[in-house]
Amino acid sequence: MNSFGRLFRISVFGESHGNQVGVLIDGCPAGIRISEDDFTNDLLRRKSGAKGTTPRIEDDKAFISSGVFNGYTSGSPILITFQNKNTKSEDYNKLANFPRPGHADLTAKMKYGGFNDYRGGGHFSGRLTLALVAAGVIAKKLIHPVSVQAKLIEAGGLKDINAAIDHAIKNEDSIGGIVECIVENGLSGLGEPFFDSFESVLSHAVFAIPAIKGIEFGSGFQAAKMFGSQHNDQIMDSKGTTESNFAGGINGGISNGNPIVFRVAVKPTSSISKAQHTINLQSNKREELKVTGRHDACIALRVPVVIEAVTALVLADFMLVEQKIPHVVS
Amino acid sequence: MNSFGRLFRISVFGESHGNQVGVLIDGCPAGIRISEDDFTNDLLRRKSGAKGTTPRIEDDKAFISSGVFNGYTSGSPILITFQNKNTKSEDYNKLANFPRPGHADLTAKMKYGGFNDYRGGGHFSGRLTLALVAAGVIAKKLIHPVSVQAKLIEAGGLKDINAAIDHAIKNEDSIGGIVECIVENGLSGLGEPFFDSFESVLSHAVFAIPAIKGIEFGSGFQAAKMFGSQHNDQIMDSKGTTESNFAGGINGGISNGNPIVFRVAVKPTSSISKAQHTINLQSNKREELKVTGRHDACIALRVPVVIEAVTALVLADFMLVEQKIPHVVS
Amino acid sequence: MNSFGRLFRISVFGESHGNQVGVLIDGCPAGIRISEDDFTNDLLRRKSGAKGTTPRIEDDKAFISSGVFNGYTSGSPILITFQNKNTKSEDYNKLANFPRPGHADLTAKMKYGGFNDYRGGGHFSGRLTLALVAAGVIAKKLIHPVSVQAKLIEAGGLKDINAAIDHAIKNEDSIGGIVECIVENGLSGLGEPFFDSFESVLSHAVFAIPAIKGIEFGSGFQAAKMFGSQHNDQIMDSKGTTESNFAGGINGGISNGNPIVFRVAVKPTSSISKAQHTINLQSNKREELKVTGRHDACIALRVPVVIEAVTALVLADFMLVEQKIPHVVS
Amino acid sequence: MNSFGRLFRISVFGESHGNQVGVLIDGCPAGIRISEDDFTNDLLRRKSGAKGTTPRIEDDKAFISSGVFNGYTSGSPILITFQNKNTKSEDYNKLANFPRPGHADLTAKMKYGGFNDYRGGGHFSGRLTLALVAAGVIAKKLIHPVSVQAKLIEAGGLKDINAAIDHAIKNEDSIGGIVECIVENGLSGLGEPFFDSFESVLSHAVFAIPAIKGIEFGSGFQAAKMFGSQHNDQIMDSKGTTESNFAGGINGGISNGNPIVFRVAVKPTSSISKAQHTINLQSNKREELKVTGRHDACIALRVPVVIEAVTALVLADFMLVEQKIPHVVS
Repeated sequence: MNSFGRLFRISVFGESHGNQVGVLIDGCPAGIRISEDDFTNDLLRRKSGAKGTTPRIEDDKAFISSGVFNGYTSGSPILITFQNKNTKSEDYNKLANFPRPGHADLTAKMKYGGFNDYRGGGHFSGRLTLALVAAGVIAKKLIHPVSVQAKLIEAGGLKDINAAIDHAIKNEDSIGGIVECIVENGLSGLGEPFFDSFESVLSHAVFAIPAIKGIEFGSGFQAAKMFGSQHNDQIMDSKGTTESNFAGGINGGISNGNPIVFRVAVKPTSSISKAQHTINLQSNKREELKVTGRHDACIALRVPVVIEAVTALVLADFMLVEQKIPHVVS
Repeated sequence: MNSFGRLFRISVFGESHGNQVGVLIDGCPAGIRISEDDFTNDLLRRKSGAKGTTPRIEDDKAFISSGVFNGYTSGSPILITFQNKNTKSEDYNKLANFPRPGHADLTAKMKYGGFNDYRGGGHFSGRLTLALVAAGVIAKKLIHPVSVQAKLIEAGGLKDINAAIDHAIKNEDSIGGIVECIVENGLSGLGEPFFDSFESVLSHAVFAIPAIKGIEFGSGFQAAKMFGSQHNDQIMDSKGTTESNFAGGINGGISNGNPIVFRVAVKPTSSISKAQHTINLQSNKREELKVTGRHDACIALRVPVVIEAVTALVLADFMLVEQKIPHVVS
Repeated sequence: MNSFGRLFRISVFGESHGNQVGVLIDGCPAGIRISEDDFTNDLLRRKSGAKGTTPRIEDDKAFISSGVFNGYTSGSPILITFQNKNTKSEDYNKLANFPRPGHADLTAKMKYGGFNDYRGGGHFSGRLTLALVAAGVIAKKLIHPVSVQAKLIEAGGLKDINAAIDHAIKNEDSIGGIVECIVENGLSGLGEPFFDSFESVLSHAVFAIPAIKGIEFGSGFQAAKMFGSQHNDQIMDSKGTTESNFAGGINGGISNGNPIVFRVAVKPTSSISKAQHTINLQSNKREELKVTGRHDACIALRVPVVIEAVTALVLADFMLVEQKIPHVVS
Repeated sequence: MNSFGRLFRISVFGESHGNQVGVLIDGCPAGIRISEDDFTNDLLRRKSGAKGTTPRIEDDKAFISSGVFNGYTSGSPILITFQNKNTKSEDYNKLANFPRPGHADLTAKMKYGGFNDYRGGGHFSGRLTLALVAAGVIAKKLIHPVSVQAKLIEAGGLKDINAAIDHAIKNEDSIGGIVECIVENGLSGLGEPFFDSFESVLSHAVFAIPAIKGIEFGSGFQAAKMFGSQHNDQIMDSKGTTESNFAGGINGGISNGNPIVFRVAVKPTSSISKAQHTINLQSNKREELKVTGRHDACIALRVPVVIEAVTALVLADFMLVEQKIPHVVS
């Protein structure tokens, strides 16, 4: 299913080289002031054009055509679309029979019997994250004053991200990175044991984002190397404030009021100009492939705002379920 | 919600020191031969008693009271329960006002207004994983001949797991570990883009297991340090066999037929005999706490079979959705 | 799926001649006082033994084994079971190859490949409504002071229900009836357009009850014969009080604060002593069948409390979604 | 939620006087040939313009902008929209403070705190049924050769529907009607006991359609007046063919292979030119209201194709779950 959420539910649609991509948001409370300017900042953060990102430039203008009335959400489903304009399908047509290593080309072809739109990855394209970011803008308004902040803390194994990207570009190669996200504002009680733990629901949403290879909360993989006496966060008061935060703000699947902290691993962009090997599906022979087209040297640069978006979506849903947001905001 | 799955759906219930724990399985195909012996092996692997595990010994006998008729699943909901016998609630009564660091004691108390059963962690207890393992036994039968194998590959930062546990026991401390799981048998086409990617659904299930702090697929966090030219798995044939498997058997959220590989980080057991600090909820003062009771020095020892179980549950559900398992097996 | 509800979710299980029937309730707020006496009244109303009902008498004692702690709901899943004791499977064994007209015997056999428990209808038995009634008792506590009242208003086409039943018994036959249900207490705002209208969700739940053939709200089928000028309920004040109530308390799928009124048609009990024709599945020949065993002459007598139960379940779920019930009651 | 379905899931959006109405279809198998001509017939059947229907004429042209590639469904979400052009919002502006009797105006205003788009009923408009019909066209292709046929069998209490409508128009009034729907092609095994019986799921979908007041299957409300010996459908062969069909093709919530038959009651159009009473929400006084604008004298005329659509949607979903339709059609 291309949908997510219980009471605040989003559905994404569209293809990289089709008419548009977009999102349908259901269950959004009424009374939230929305203007198209609200989207500018987050869409810019996701946008390409900077060093290390693809030169495919779209104006990425959000068009809201349902669910907003007189400038406020109306309680009905909100449809937001983004037109595709700067598509160069010819870059991709030749790839129809050359599944790109690291991409969904071959799995999609097998799953959909070859009926899938393969151009630019079709529905599997990272362009779909535009829809996530747009929905995230509304979710962030909903959860205010809870704040969600994600940033790239490492690329290609380096803290000096700029240097890492230069290195990758020079090698006509791509690199991955690590994004860290922090949720602040003392929200306790979000999440449920077996099976909707906070980590369960959040990781479900995060792994919907293309290129994510791992997620860890608080101490994460480091926890496996620690002693219990080091790892346990000593409790300081009855609100649950702790000395350390190896738990990442979550105990037993439920947020404990301390900052929620998690990190995700982003793989290097799969599309690279370097020669690779794949199978020619027509001849059934292995051939060399150079993915020309337009690519990001480090897709991880554009991921933080997407991570923020899905985190805000998850928070909005949990907060509606926990009755921390009303159905009519005024 | 204490439920998971779309067409193969399980619901867990029970408390550590209540009458029983158990699982209700809905959507299980009819015609699968089930006997109580089927559970023996997996329950033993989860069982405690060995070095590094708690001395609380339960007979862990699965009692099936619905949904199986004349030795075969009938198509109706299957209820499996495990009686709790060896409970020592007195060990826990004194903890009612002393939330244990690292546990759900305080978050549960806050979320449920103090009405939760706090004895032994109540519904948050690791004992609930018995229910998962039992459901997993049935799921494994369903997905056969697909195989799921998990093992502990590291504890306390060491590959020599035995030594790591000895060290922890000597220090009256606990340690974490890393579990690796591999799914083999050429299943392609499982998983969906946005939002039910294979990684999304699997991580959702995995984070329902207590003590998990992170999950990574294939290259995982290492991907963040790699070049695209290293990371891309070169495609060798039209079935999608690849030279390497950094993708962990999944592209675009869909299984590609190569082995599915993932690792999870397990934190050190939170209950330790060493002195820690917490808040006395009656006096509202910080006090020292030694969790006596009975604990695992390395809970990660008992996690692999639980990981296998939830992986099998996820596979069963995906395979039913993808029509790779019929509703009547015969 | 054998489950229903979004935030207040119930799952039923069990078979007529198995160990037990029961219900698992998930999402029930914490802090509701529950004792076994709470179930007495509603279980008695469903109970058999009176004129027109089956002589199979079970003690119908609710056993709560999870989710209640120190007399209050704990916020964890609640498991309620009813043991089956007075089973006479021999009455049914001979029916294995004689699908009873009007029953699920043949559809169940076909759907589950013959693996289903056919004794007494197995999982399709009306005995499963015990589970619904038990869950309804808890739901009624939750929705208090909203009241739900259902009663049999007609049987066998007569308002004199007693006479109708005497007539049926004399003829060794069975009769149907009409149950009317009224929800009172000014609840507006429950229900959502497309597709979770109040009528949608309620009818979904009601048609889960065996033997229901129709449902109508307010004017119901009579509406088809009316003029708009007659049917429209004139609005009297800004709270939405109306002069008439042909809408049955619902406009646009949303409760309007007036009493919610609906009626359901219950078919005559399918099991009758009179000779009927069916197919002998062994010989593949048509044969005469007299269903001896123990039956209700008018199952509709026992339906009102079941209708109340599912209505209360639907209300509880809607009220949780609409934040009219908190997650911790105190 | 504005969504429905498990594996074949539709979500509707839009408002009567907004930019458009539409539907997002998720889970549609790949490989179904779709052209815009496919929609012509069913959209015409729903269209207005004939005697007894509103003079608001829209061209009702389906625009497919995602999920179809090279003329075939691609397996990705399908977005279908219909532009609103012939809107006369001025007809409705004056109604903002005059909730129309029989409409959702007041319940919507209360539920959404006055933020809802009230023009022409906004999201509650019957115009949303366009979206249902469009989705139904695709569902009908999926379920082929199963046929779904609905027709108006009675209006204003008369079998002579033409006369009934003339009478209503002459009186500046509106009338209701009864629609009967029959599903043919020997599908057995669709539906599940507790709670997804065929009747449960179908009635859930049907009551999403505005103006429906009741639904009955097979014998329906007449069953309440019958003897069991009359009502039981005698079984003729091992496929389950029955002499009569009072069951309406369903036993125990599962389709039995005989034709599925149900009827729905449609209320008279709420908008009428005759004077009615409502509350002026500004002055809080009762006032007389004549709903001028453009209305249907008998909305039931346009309902059959909508009933067919939701029935086809329900069948498609059940057939996917039951593996009677593959995920790739070719």
